[in-house]
Amino acid sequence: MTTMTATQATLEIDQSRLWDALMVMAEIGKTERGGSGRLTLTELDKQARQLFIRWCEEIGCTVTVDRIGNLFARREGKRPDLEPIAFGSHLDTQPKGGRFDGVLGVLAGLEVLRTLHEHDIVTERPLLLVNWTNEEGSRFAPAMVASGVYAGEFTHDYILSRTDRDGVTFAEALRKIGFEGDAAIGEPSFARFFELHIEQGPVLEEEALDIGVVTGVQGMRWYDITFTGQAVHAGTTPLSYRNDALCAASRLIDSLTQHALTHDPDAKVTFGELTIPSSSRNVAPGEVRLTVDLRHTSTEKLDALEIAYFDKLAEAGETYGVMIDQTCIWDSPVVAFNDDNIASVEASAKAHGFGYKKMMSGAGHDAVYISKIKPTSMIFVPCLKGISHNEAEYSSPEQCAKGAQVLCDVVVEHANRV
Amino acid sequence: MTTMTATQATLEIDQSRLWDALMVMAEIGKTERGGSGRLTLTELDKQARQLFIRWCEEIGCTVTVDRIGNLFARREGKRPDLEPIAFGSHLDTQPKGGRFDGVLGVLAGLEVLRTLHEHDIVTERPLLLVNWTNEEGSRFAPAMVASGVYAGEFTHDYILSRTDRDGVTFAEALRKIGFEGDAAIGEPSFARFFELHIEQGPVLEEEALDIGVVTGVQGMRWYDITFTGQAVHAGTTPLSYRNDALCAASRLIDSLTQHALTHDPDAKVTFGELTIPSSSRNVAPGEVRLTVDLRHTSTEKLDALEIAYFDKLAEAGETYGVMIDQTCIWDSPVVAFNDDNIASVEASAKAHGFGYKKMMSGAGHDAVYISKIKPTSMIFVPCLKGISHNEAEYSSPEQCAKGAQVLCDVVVEHANRV
Repeated sequence: MTTMTATQATLEIDQSRLWDALMVMAEIGKTERGGSGRLTLTELDKQARQLFIRWCEEIGCTVTVDRIGNLFARREGKRPDLEPIAFGSHLDTQPKGGRFDGVLGVLAGLEVLRTLHEHDIVTERPLLLVNWTNEEGSRFAPAMVASGVYAGEFTHDYILSRTDRDGVTFAEALRKIGFEGDAAIGEPSFARFFELHIEQGPVLEEEALDIGVVTGVQGMRWYDITFTGQAVHAGTTPLSYRNDALCAASRLIDSLTQHALTHDPDAKVTFGELTIPSSSRNVAPGEVRLTVDLRHTSTEKLDALEIAYFDKLAEAGETYGVMIDQTCIWDSPVVAFNDDNIASVEASAKAHGFGYKKMMSGAGHDAVYISKIKPTSMIFVPCLKGISHNEAEYSSPEQCAKGAQVLCDVVVEHANRV
Repeated sequence: MTTMTATQATLEIDQSRLWDALMVMAEIGKTERGGSGRLTLTELDKQARQLFIRWCEEIGCTVTVDRIGNLFARREGKRPDLEPIAFGSHLDTQPKGGRFDGVLGVLAGLEVLRTLHEHDIVTERPLLLVNWTNEEGSRFAPAMVASGVYAGEFTHDYILSRTDRDGVTFAEALRKIGFEGDAAIGEPSFARFFELHIEQGPVLEEEALDIGVVTGVQGMRWYDITFTGQAVHAGTTPLSYRNDALCAASRLIDSLTQHALTHDPDAKVTFGELTIPSSSRNVAPGEVRLTVDLRHTSTEKLDALEIAYFDKLAEAGETYGVMIDQTCIWDSPVVAFNDDNIASVEASAKAHGFGYKKMMSGAGHDAVYISKIKPTSMIFVPCLKGISHNEAEYSSPEQCAKGAQVLCDVVVEHANRV
């Protein structure tokens, strides 16, 4: 690590030890192309949890498990009566996921505990390293559901009744791997929360920065649209007689994307799924279904983007004589993280001379739900080409270590504030 | 029928008898919503063929079957040594097809024979009513394959080896229903060919016309395109960093359609199938596959349309930073029908005072292949809203009768030319 200023603690994390832990964990559920596939509450997830518990207990931590499988490794402080400083992320992955998404946040937290243990340092407050169950939502939808239950966003019954593709409930899967714990929902409590995570986007890498000081999470609105025109034969119907649903959808996609690119480079517009229910090469489509995902870091600008979306949608329908049926199926407001947490992350990055920028998270994380009940913020590190949810996901040992170092700084700083 | 001029034969077809024949045939393979489902070489097709043969034999015709199941009903002329005048279409339908596509051409031909029989008229040349096997191509691709074999476009072996979805070959299906006949391919021969068909488009209805004097068939070019960009997360990747394959496809679809609408209202551009191989609501598509169907009545204008397509395609790829791989998978040149046939159809329509226009066919028909070896043309009648390949397909008894009357006129005229 680079030299610290006199005002910062000089406790340094161990880059090799962190990298080794990441690589050992990645052996559990290793995929053909070098990624990780550890769906939540499977036998592989059980093995990952057991390894996590062993590693934590080896350095004197006590692990408790709550009713929905969240793991909390407590390292005692000088003042056990004070609420601990919490940090962590998740060990579950996508079916063909990477070795860093979630895992880095947990194992960098372990590296913080190991560093303290190695130097025989006891903080004032206790520390609490958390592994949240089922962040990915790949096996049991929705995503981030266990941190959501912890934060009171969903009920305990709700999460237990979620089912996977084979009809297995969350409750059954949890019991099968033996991780239905005794701790009540919301226990143990903590004072504040930090989450280190790979960016899952290209910005830090493109700008050659080390650290994202995450100030909040973008607002997000999801829509489903059905365009209904008339299916007609490609050879016999002149263009002027048509009501082509695919032309209308295409007009919307191109025009809204161009509008956003021109007027607001921070706006994010994504059309992820387009289906033609009954399609044939020589039939102009009579019906098209399209999904829309709008995101922005500013509520005001998200509203403006939504107005542009409505305008372009109406114009597309009129241009091609196509009926439109659209619904907003999800509206997730802009989240602002805790200023005190953010300031600590920025100060640490600055003190180490790390290149950094303040940025909003584009994706959801466990920190989103936790931020509703406790002072929370996140730390991002770059990942190769922004690739994530993919076996090719990669952050270098140096990049991971810089993130872990910032995590160590802020955790120790807050744990010594009494 | 309206009164004929003195120069025309006054032989009138029977509207009710024609309509009754259509409705009786439609009982074979009748669908829930009142359409017809008689896939080629099925048990239902066998029943339709048997009914056709019975009806033809009842009025003294002799039916021969060739090696690929084409049916030829011969009504003897005063000069059996001369080549007959042929006319007809097909009795097979789409899986959920209509009662008129193909069937009208065959049963209007039957009505011509019945009218001559009723009036005890014998033409100079023999007459030959044809039911071509597997025009639709729904069970065995490609379409129009049996008229294609007759005309020498495909080999006999080629058609026999075509397989359906269950792996059954054309040869097996043909033998199973007992319609592998003795007549050699290309036998019996004939002097010229007329085909009556519903328009399958909206033009005649929109212009309140009775008859389409079909002068040829549009040229047609089919392309497959793959757009390859980069799949990225909807939340984390700014628009300016993306290479969105769906945006590029959409730009092409909208811009080429608008170009055609503005510059050449006769150009037909259809994007029938669009697929995103691995799609997710919160992922900007990295790959999109698109089909393109370009048609025009003029080879020169079809070439110009193709150039516009290449331009718009390149522009779409550049705009969104997306790679393009495109192939022309089919190129069907513009077909011009026989002038003598066309003149006879126009003269008949005019003589009856029918509203008509000269037009090109947008779809393929058995007449396309036959036109390569014999003087050929087609007669169109309007159908409701241009709907075809659909259970809702409809032409009125009057509309069908007017088409049959023109067919009767031109067949009798040419059969008496020696």
